[in-house]
Amino acid sequence: MALRVAVTGASGRMGQAVARAVIADDAAELVAFVARPGSALVGTEVTALLGADAPGLLISETLVLEGVDVVVDFTLPESTLHTAKLCATAGIPVVIGTTGFSGEELSSLERSLSSLAFCRAANFSTGVNLAYRLLTIAAEVMGGDADIEIHEAHHKHKIDAPSGTALAMGQVIADAMGTSLDEVARHDRSSQRAAREPGSIGFSVTRAGDIVGEHTVMFGTEGERLEVTHKASSRHAFAAGALRAAHFLRDKPAGSYSMADVLGLS
Amino acid sequence: MALRVAVTGASGRMGQAVARAVIADDAAELVAFVARPGSALVGTEVTALLGADAPGLLISETLVLEGVDVVVDFTLPESTLHTAKLCATAGIPVVIGTTGFSGEELSSLERSLSSLAFCRAANFSTGVNLAYRLLTIAAEVMGGDADIEIHEAHHKHKIDAPSGTALAMGQVIADAMGTSLDEVARHDRSSQRAAREPGSIGFSVTRAGDIVGEHTVMFGTEGERLEVTHKASSRHAFAAGALRAAHFLRDKPAGSYSMADVLGLS
Amino acid sequence: MALRVAVTGASGRMGQAVARAVIADDAAELVAFVARPGSALVGTEVTALLGADAPGLLISETLVLEGVDVVVDFTLPESTLHTAKLCATAGIPVVIGTTGFSGEELSSLERSLSSLAFCRAANFSTGVNLAYRLLTIAAEVMGGDADIEIHEAHHKHKIDAPSGTALAMGQVIADAMGTSLDEVARHDRSSQRAAREPGSIGFSVTRAGDIVGEHTVMFGTEGERLEVTHKASSRHAFAAGALRAAHFLRDKPAGSYSMADVLGLS
Amino acid sequence: MALRVAVTGASGRMGQAVARAVIADDAAELVAFVARPGSALVGTEVTALLGADAPGLLISETLVLEGVDVVVDFTLPESTLHTAKLCATAGIPVVIGTTGFSGEELSSLERSLSSLAFCRAANFSTGVNLAYRLLTIAAEVMGGDADIEIHEAHHKHKIDAPSGTALAMGQVIADAMGTSLDEVARHDRSSQRAAREPGSIGFSVTRAGDIVGEHTVMFGTEGERLEVTHKASSRHAFAAGALRAAHFLRDKPAGSYSMADVLGLS
Repeated sequence: MALRVAVTGASGRMGQAVARAVIADDAAELVAFVARPGSALVGTEVTALLGADAPGLLISETLVLEGVDVVVDFTLPESTLHTAKLCATAGIPVVIGTTGFSGEELSSLERSLSSLAFCRAANFSTGVNLAYRLLTIAAEVMGGDADIEIHEAHHKHKIDAPSGTALAMGQVIADAMGTSLDEVARHDRSSQRAAREPGSIGFSVTRAGDIVGEHTVMFGTEGERLEVTHKASSRHAFAAGALRAAHFLRDKPAGSYSMADVLGLS
Repeated sequence: MALRVAVTGASGRMGQAVARAVIADDAAELVAFVARPGSALVGTEVTALLGADAPGLLISETLVLEGVDVVVDFTLPESTLHTAKLCATAGIPVVIGTTGFSGEELSSLERSLSSLAFCRAANFSTGVNLAYRLLTIAAEVMGGDADIEIHEAHHKHKIDAPSGTALAMGQVIADAMGTSLDEVARHDRSSQRAAREPGSIGFSVTRAGDIVGEHTVMFGTEGERLEVTHKASSRHAFAAGALRAAHFLRDKPAGSYSMADVLGLS
Repeated sequence: MALRVAVTGASGRMGQAVARAVIADDAAELVAFVARPGSALVGTEVTALLGADAPGLLISETLVLEGVDVVVDFTLPESTLHTAKLCATAGIPVVIGTTGFSGEELSSLERSLSSLAFCRAANFSTGVNLAYRLLTIAAEVMGGDADIEIHEAHHKHKIDAPSGTALAMGQVIADAMGTSLDEVARHDRSSQRAAREPGSIGFSVTRAGDIVGEHTVMFGTEGERLEVTHKASSRHAFAAGALRAAHFLRDKPAGSYSMADVLGLS
Repeated sequence: MALRVAVTGASGRMGQAVARAVIADDAAELVAFVARPGSALVGTEVTALLGADAPGLLISETLVLEGVDVVVDFTLPESTLHTAKLCATAGIPVVIGTTGFSGEELSSLERSLSSLAFCRAANFSTGVNLAYRLLTIAAEVMGGDADIEIHEAHHKHKIDAPSGTALAMGQVIADAMGTSLDEVARHDRSSQRAAREPGSIGFSVTRAGDIVGEHTVMFGTEGERLEVTHKASSRHAFAAGALRAAHFLRDKPAGSYSMADVLGLS
């Protein structure tokens, strides 16, 4: 039987991407698409909003959990706290992609989720989470001999550098090698005149145009290079991963599941 | 105590690359470097031939196994059969990189090796063997959804296409997905006018200049791409992998070990 | 004074992309956005349709050329023929991105355009047209010595291979070298066992996921490689090039102008 | 008639690479290969040293210019000054790849060369010099709209960053755009939290393994990217460019010629 999914955040781009992914999935059914109270979207036909076929479904103002197998929430902290409480009361698993929680909000969230099966992640892309696993193995096999370099490219509007994903990749590698990323990371070589330090992890950054996000990790030795590259082209990658997590959570016992769990990589 | 290594094939480029790698390794010692009987190199100083420091060592005509921990042989089938017999008699582990055995030669080789710890591989590069493992995992996680494409580039003199390594990568992926490579491989799209077949594995080939060997496997979906790339720059990569295998074989019980075993990937 | 642009094809994706580019350009003003007669879009506010600020402008059913400096038309042959006739009568320059004309339609089009300044192109991307020029120069300088290989990647739905743009790049190179592309093009190497033929141009193709379009031309010799790569990420690139052509046509004498003319490359 | 070439620097790697390129060129003949006075190589057979066929030619101690069409010199400043004086006296054109001249040495060199046809360059690679030209054109066409980023990768031993070639590429682009490279260059983004500055040129650096030298310049806009990439794989690229310059200088009037002149790009 198709997975019955409720999606929140009908006015947000990630909420809409998840709803589209659910509609396109033969093994899932979009049973509710919820906007925030007072949104102008409430009552709109989902088909009209998304240009995807969801006959008869209107955007709702309230998350009703009857007949729902799993909820997917990419909204804002306050809204997600509300969703988590409703899920806890009803015993419905939840996938959470919201970020930016304060410490206090996080504690509150964790209390609500304690009795549920849930998956919360900063990045739901299958490819990025798979890359983390590949990098762990590569670091174990080649890390001792290889020079490791992480290059990332993003659009011109991005203000942080390196990207959070590049740093997370570096962290995964440092963990695999038993070192501290802070100690081995090198972010700028233009101000030194010295050969590469053995054991360091170099980061480099490109900012141009509309690049959605590209990351390449190189393991270079005398004679060969191994590279793992991830390129994102749209937020569909995140929506598809969240939907994969939703399928995974069905009938799972209460607990916190990672994307590594979802992908069978743990 | 340093690993005492005997290397055959003193007139060959791989034999010389292995000997150089042994000399450069603080944990190994080159104790014999053997040319084929009658070679003009017999009696030459190894230091002079390789431009690497092997004081007092002369190229020999006969493989003497006293005081040897492991033999590395990248020669020709007939020569390798001889090496294997000597190793079997002396109980010395052997790393074999020779290719091109006939069926009969292979049977003879296997009889000689049956009582030894040995590692025989078509490609000793750490990076390529690591890539096989990463591709297995990637195929398990993304293979069901992703379009898989293998692109390889080699120098203009290479006569076979796609490369053996590209086909081996395809085989690894087909195995992970439970399909037959022959059935899903696509080698030419210029003669059809049709969209990509789901489940196919596309191969494409570049031949130019002096490219040593580059392979990229792409897993592409709606929204993202994951790529695993290997680039060889010199035969040192193969020599270094063979030496890693030699270290691995020390004190191992008799048996056939793969590069996956050597790299801790099995 | 801002360039006053009329855009046809309000229901098409390229028409909408051009209209958005015009609205975003401080040096241009969208003065008309035309749908085909009977379209449900007629009378709709442009701001609402595009999510871009075009205050007071409604989608119209008829192309009125009073107060228009240039027309941009990416529609269908029949519609473009109608546009061209109106432009000819009014003496207004026109940018045409429509493709798929029959021979008869093309003759009719050329008659209408004969008294106008116009720019018609198969690909309006600045980058692709720039690449053509760079490839000409590269072929002149390196073509005699280098092995030339063209690799292109597109989404899984594309049915022709290699892409029209890859073939156009090959044509540009063959022209620069005074050879015939048909004679030197090689599309499949899997069925031969032979070294690369000197003077050939190799094509290879990747089809995966949602790749918008990537082309790399490699000039490879002993010791070095030069590559020119173009990556499209959205149809904005085509809209921006068409708008650049529109600016170029203002106040130009009657005549046929290419994108090379527009970009100052001829 | 084959170009008769004298090459200096028989003990240096570039001198040997040039000599090999001359021997391999059907349109050229190696008529002298000169070591520094007192070198152990003097009197050695060139065939034996290079493993390339130069029958009867011995390495000489003195540069004799009778019967020589052009001299190629990649040595050290003092030696090159000596070569230049001999060439000036005999009226023989000279290709100079030596670097590291002091100001005084440079003045002396220029005096000697004033009556000769000569070509002096920091980088003789055809591909790099071609890339400079392509970058000029790309900057003229796309520079106003595009974000320009230069990424380079070299082996782990390189101590300067970015490479001289990367900076030269930036200079070429800045010149084409009428800006100052010092003002627009950005070398580190990890210490700021801000969007990309319009008009800046970003540099990024990778250091790993044995990478000979790779440079990519990206012109990125909304909707597309154009990239020019150069990859060096051996010093043969520099030798081949120097030989191309030698052919070019035959029968040229006195004067200073650049690699752009040699390649027909000026």
